[in-house]
Amino acid sequence: MLEPIFHTLKQAQSVLAQQNREQKDAALKAACAAIDTDRAAILAANAADVDRARSAGMKESRIDRLSLTESRIDGIIEGVDAIIRLEDPIGSVKAGWKTPNGLFIERITVPLGVAAVIYESRPNVTADAFALAYKAGCAVLLRGSSAALESNRALVSAIQAGLALSASGVPDAVALAASGSRDEIDEILQARGFIDVALPRGGRDLIQRVARNARVPVIETGEGNCHIFVDESADIENAVDIIENAKIQKPGACNAVETALVHKNAVCALMPLLAERLAGKVELRCDERAKNAASTASGAIKDAAEDDWATEFLDYVLAVKTVDTLDEAIAHINRYGTRHSEAILTNDLKAAERFCQHVDAACVYVNASIRFTDGGEFGFGAELGISTQKFHVRGPMGIDALTAIKYRITGDGQIRLG
Amino acid sequence: MLEPIFHTLKQAQSVLAQQNREQKDAALKAACAAIDTDRAAILAANAADVDRARSAGMKESRIDRLSLTESRIDGIIEGVDAIIRLEDPIGSVKAGWKTPNGLFIERITVPLGVAAVIYESRPNVTADAFALAYKAGCAVLLRGSSAALESNRALVSAIQAGLALSASGVPDAVALAASGSRDEIDEILQARGFIDVALPRGGRDLIQRVARNARVPVIETGEGNCHIFVDESADIENAVDIIENAKIQKPGACNAVETALVHKNAVCALMPLLAERLAGKVELRCDERAKNAASTASGAIKDAAEDDWATEFLDYVLAVKTVDTLDEAIAHINRYGTRHSEAILTNDLKAAERFCQHVDAACVYVNASIRFTDGGEFGFGAELGISTQKFHVRGPMGIDALTAIKYRITGDGQIRLG
Repeated sequence: MLEPIFHTLKQAQSVLAQQNREQKDAALKAACAAIDTDRAAILAANAADVDRARSAGMKESRIDRLSLTESRIDGIIEGVDAIIRLEDPIGSVKAGWKTPNGLFIERITVPLGVAAVIYESRPNVTADAFALAYKAGCAVLLRGSSAALESNRALVSAIQAGLALSASGVPDAVALAASGSRDEIDEILQARGFIDVALPRGGRDLIQRVARNARVPVIETGEGNCHIFVDESADIENAVDIIENAKIQKPGACNAVETALVHKNAVCALMPLLAERLAGKVELRCDERAKNAASTASGAIKDAAEDDWATEFLDYVLAVKTVDTLDEAIAHINRYGTRHSEAILTNDLKAAERFCQHVDAACVYVNASIRFTDGGEFGFGAELGISTQKFHVRGPMGIDALTAIKYRITGDGQIRLG
Repeated sequence: MLEPIFHTLKQAQSVLAQQNREQKDAALKAACAAIDTDRAAILAANAADVDRARSAGMKESRIDRLSLTESRIDGIIEGVDAIIRLEDPIGSVKAGWKTPNGLFIERITVPLGVAAVIYESRPNVTADAFALAYKAGCAVLLRGSSAALESNRALVSAIQAGLALSASGVPDAVALAASGSRDEIDEILQARGFIDVALPRGGRDLIQRVARNARVPVIETGEGNCHIFVDESADIENAVDIIENAKIQKPGACNAVETALVHKNAVCALMPLLAERLAGKVELRCDERAKNAASTASGAIKDAAEDDWATEFLDYVLAVKTVDTLDEAIAHINRYGTRHSEAILTNDLKAAERFCQHVDAACVYVNASIRFTDGGEFGFGAELGISTQKFHVRGPMGIDALTAIKYRITGDGQIRLG
């Protein structure tokens, strides 16, 4: 029964859409202050969620994602502060021109509308998604996991109380879908005319479920079965550095490498060094040629199975496949990849061009770690996720993903003749 | 059973995506030549469609839209020629920057993928949609109405034959969904992973049906319940010119005016002139104040009913409502409008600003006819329709609506540290 909330959000959004940067930033500052003031209540609510989750047998890695601490609340406040510092994405004139008959046409950014963010256990997403949407003049419906319900309630209450204290604040521009029922997600995904975009943030199952069932526009994020191709002309030492970085700096990230593709003429030079570097840290699952090349250096190397090429491990596991040609690498990536981030390591200009041209992905890299696929690293200041679709927005998303455009046409009495 | 076609289109699109402008233009020229050569077959097929439609009792206005003539085939060829003259929308670098650690990031346009165009009787859409998609490196699945099936078959055969004759042509990049069954539309709308965008072009029912049922991205087009607000400071003579133009220049167009809103302080000056100008041409459906103001000048004025405010007449009918304030006009538009094209006629700067800021529509006009909402009039060279949604693209769509972006990141060995 979210319909009353949909109406309230839509109404609040039409108010927020008219506000200038000073008004929105003042309200966001008030929300930060309220989160700071309400720390005790937020931590108590979170402790209740954590107790409940632990009793229900939740894995400790997920408990850790759910848990708030004083320093994590500091992090939440800093995150909102960073969004306050962003330029206002609304009211920006992206293009303007005169037509032959003297009309002046301007293309101006406006808020996208009401966003629904559907996410898993981390409560920091609650404040982050709210602040990004608010700054973009969008109202937001937050649907966190039922495991984090009390934490999210406490956070949203604090935010709304802060907005209510600010002269320009629009407290109704944020709402929590709090029944904890799965039907609620379906109701959100059917809400044509109320929800202008649904953003699933979480694991593959959540994202696929949302994308399959939605009747409202969706931005799919995150799934990353990413590759690094080591061409025959690659700098081998640097290739080892980059693969290590892309695998172990944050193995659970969507922009971590899952499969290394190695040119047959590089495999003998690369594999012993790579196996040595990753020994005891990463499980290698290799095809026969890569295994043979590596086996002089290391013991624990497994055989890759067909499934491994299609798997986003999100773990200390790396599949390795030897390819005869650049084109075989490209074909493998276009077959198994998720169109996220793909790299070639090479010193061959034509190979680099061909790879970038033929690989279909949001981000194609030449001689760098694919871990840079990130709104912060790209310089966007804040990140809403990484879009793996082509429609509306692709790749790392800054706040601009929550904008649309409006044409303003100024004349002096023109009528159309032809 | 479109699945084999989906696979063929996807494969063909990956080939076409790699082609440069010369290759695509040469193939489009060959398609034009083949349409020219096959005139007799196309006209014969169309005559069969027309006979069938007439026997089935189709209205003459629809028969006219279905019918091809020599000069309409000339028009189809000229339409494709205009698309050949467009700049290549693919491979354009929209932004590029260096990050602090020396990565060079470029944002480059790529084809959106496979488009499905679902349309009604006009066979000229067949060639036009094909050519726009092809130029954008997109494959296209054409689903015209069953009434035009033979005409569309003949046109698509000619196009494919032309593409096959061109050295660079990709004949499989265009296909016709030709079973004539309604299930086919549902199959297209469910084809996640194969269809990257569905474009319904036609009446409200078609567009709503597509938007409601699609599991693939959709661009909604066309529905236009558009308003012109005559403010108290408007130039009344010019207001009459603009309303006349927006109503009768092409009443069936989505950018025609359906309701005139008139400030109470302008109604006495405007209505007699407007009623006189439109007498015998347009049926006026007025609220009481507008009717009283007009009645000195004209006889046949009807009373407006509540339904009239929500109706896209697409006919020689104009609803007229008197409003007490600018804000009442804005509220009326935001309640009944379809977010298409809305105008204020005024000489008051603050009123113009407020109207443009508060009216939620793809195109907001000051002192000009709303009939200018059109890709050609905007200078886009060719038009794919007018998007009435905010997601991905809004307002008149040029060929850019069929593009997406890709980030290319060039480094010299960078790994991510933090």
